Amino acid sequence: MDAVTALGLIAGSLTTLSFAPQVIRAWRTRSTADLSLAMLVVFLAGILLWLVYGVVREDLAIIAANAITAVLIGLLLTIKKKHG
Amino acid sequence: MDAVTALGLIAGSLTTLSFAPQVIRAWRTRSTADLSLAMLVVFLAGILLWLVYGVVREDLAIIAANAITAVLIGLLLTIKKKHG
Repeated sequence: MDAVTALGLIAGSLTTLSFAPQVIRAWRTRSTADLSLAMLVVFLAGILLWLVYGVVREDLAIIAANAITAVLIGLLLTIKKKHG
Repeated sequence: MDAVTALGLIAGSLTTLSFAPQVIRAWRTRSTADLSLAMLVVFLAGILLWLVYGVVREDLAIIAANAITAVLIGLLLTIKKKHG
């Protein structure tokens, strides 16, 4: 792996990691009332477009970061739909 | 501009846009007590690394999205530092 890809993977780890506490909190409390549905939906749409962008550009760091973030946001949306 | 760059700019607009309500809210209320400082700092570090990544890759969409997001997170951190 080249140094630039490694840099991208570190960048992706940090931005993805910063969502983890939110997901863990929502998972534990089953409470997502304070999370804006519109914000989550717009964010997920953006993340999925970034994922497509990464695939087209064949950019491993962008693909990895956005795939994992999409799963995390998907989890948040599932909890929100189920528990409000 | 090629179609792939346009796709990236749309993706970036969506992910950046989803932060705007949070920044506007913090700006209006001057209240950021519920925002985790650690989360903001880790996220900002990741965004700045993505910015470096975009510059090295000469990728306009990544540079634009992360530069604007960095300013927004910087604003949140400034409000948090000033008003708690």
